[in-house]
Amino acid sequence: MMTDRPPILVVALAEGDDPGIWIEAFRARLPGFKIMSLSENPEAERVRYVASWRHPPGSLTRFDQLAALFSLGAGVDHLLADKDLPAGVPIVRVVDPDLTNRMSEWVMLHVLLHHRQQRLYDYQQFEKIWADDIRQPAAKDVRIGIMGLGVLGQDAAHKLKMMGFDVAGWSRTPKALPGIETFAGETSLGDFLGRTHILVSLLPLTPATKGILDAGLFRQLARDGHCGPILLNAGRGGLQNEADIVAALENGILRAATLDVFEQEPLPKHSELWHHPALTITPHNAAISAPEAIADFIADQIEAAEQGGKLDHVVDRSTQY
Amino acid sequence: MMTDRPPILVVALAEGDDPGIWIEAFRARLPGFKIMSLSENPEAERVRYVASWRHPPGSLTRFDQLAALFSLGAGVDHLLADKDLPAGVPIVRVVDPDLTNRMSEWVMLHVLLHHRQQRLYDYQQFEKIWADDIRQPAAKDVRIGIMGLGVLGQDAAHKLKMMGFDVAGWSRTPKALPGIETFAGETSLGDFLGRTHILVSLLPLTPATKGILDAGLFRQLARDGHCGPILLNAGRGGLQNEADIVAALENGILRAATLDVFEQEPLPKHSELWHHPALTITPHNAAISAPEAIADFIADQIEAAEQGGKLDHVVDRSTQY
Repeated sequence: MMTDRPPILVVALAEGDDPGIWIEAFRARLPGFKIMSLSENPEAERVRYVASWRHPPGSLTRFDQLAALFSLGAGVDHLLADKDLPAGVPIVRVVDPDLTNRMSEWVMLHVLLHHRQQRLYDYQQFEKIWADDIRQPAAKDVRIGIMGLGVLGQDAAHKLKMMGFDVAGWSRTPKALPGIETFAGETSLGDFLGRTHILVSLLPLTPATKGILDAGLFRQLARDGHCGPILLNAGRGGLQNEADIVAALENGILRAATLDVFEQEPLPKHSELWHHPALTITPHNAAISAPEAIADFIADQIEAAEQGGKLDHVVDRSTQY
Repeated sequence: MMTDRPPILVVALAEGDDPGIWIEAFRARLPGFKIMSLSENPEAERVRYVASWRHPPGSLTRFDQLAALFSLGAGVDHLLADKDLPAGVPIVRVVDPDLTNRMSEWVMLHVLLHHRQQRLYDYQQFEKIWADDIRQPAAKDVRIGIMGLGVLGQDAAHKLKMMGFDVAGWSRTPKALPGIETFAGETSLGDFLGRTHILVSLLPLTPATKGILDAGLFRQLARDGHCGPILLNAGRGGLQNEADIVAALENGILRAATLDVFEQEPLPKHSELWHHPALTITPHNAAISAPEAIADFIADQIEAAEQGGKLDHVVDRSTQY
């Protein structure tokens, strides 16, 4: 009988990505479910949940009994890019303390790398130069601006403030954070940028944010900082105009940048970003969470939903985050 | 009349160091004092305070009316190295939030640099390799051990814990820190080292700590960490055996290290430390404080002492910190 057979959770990854580690993590947490990959061709009527990271567009259309669709990493733009997504199904963002911690590690590392001029000291070590910068500013005199004040932006803001930095945040809709100056909406973006020495982008990629990190924005950053203006982007590559970043580094509109995300990933070998002396590049691993931690978060949600509970962190399809 | 002439504060630096910035900072804060450098040959009977950073040994002996002797930076080993220091004069450590913050910035930067394997990603960027380490541990699975739990060690411990690391501390005498496991004394050093993946030395240099960072100590560090054992030393060069560090890096007893301090400073051009691939070197600038901040701290203490108050942070000459 159909009813005796367990419901299915499908792990849907990009073609070529190995779902093994995810399947194992979900099996350990959801014994009442059958866990399958897309390529195992699961029976559509038994598929109740899909956990996706960059599934091929159109590959979920036949699952018309879905109760929810989960993202396996930060951001849901990869899900919403699929125009044939089953309609009306709740899309759930992952909010996992492990992922949040890892993102804040990356932000903290690269803020400090620039603030403490580690690339200068790397160069000096190579040249056997013993010299320090007596004008090295204190953290309190360095103004950091975080774009995007979701769970990730709030955690990074809090930790940077605890290190003594002068932190402000910007978001589309107004948010109040204890001890952090916040700016909201298009009209206050200029004021926010005008005070910012180090800009940290943790924005979601939506139609409203696509290409937002461009020459016009860089020109509005504060130029009175000792080592700024500096750009960090760990949001999405689609937020940034890479030609503008290279030009801004060339003409001094930006002093340096660290990028974890790119217009095209993997970053192509021919990209001029690889060897720019003022650029640090990480391979979109700012916040790769442990599969076990993500599976835990999703399993908790599924267990609650199966008992009639409400799903948390459901995406608003109109704003796309 | 003698009594109409203001008392003198002497700024006593190593030969060749320019005292100008310090004299300016003290003049702004202590209008009731004459501020002079050693080379201006101040009248001994009017010299009430000395603020020193590596003054030439013997150069303070004639100041027999001293009320206190201040260090201009973290640590007092440079003062105590002068065997002809005026006897019985209180020696005062500098405890300045600006200096503490800067030291914690350095510790946080270099812990994260190793934890997040930034040197691997630097190499990959150079080689245009797009790859990440799926075994990258979470901070909670990385055990950091801080040697030295004074103001600097406590601040670093607190901030690293807030980033999610598993932090413990070791000190000569027992200390209780909220939420941080602490070890004390020689007998517990083995247990402390045995749990530690990343060792952070913020020890003072005393007869008891001289050369403590040696092969025998490195061999006791935990070897089950993903990127350890790792050594950070921002205490004093005299704590470390540099030949042992190089050997430990060669034979894998240490995986990597960041050193801010050296047996001889500036680090000589012929040192093999400069170009070791697993070593990051900073030029003893982990916590160079703004002269204005240090002058503030010392001026506050002098003003209190002049009104009959008690000096804070007086060094115990028997333990030398």
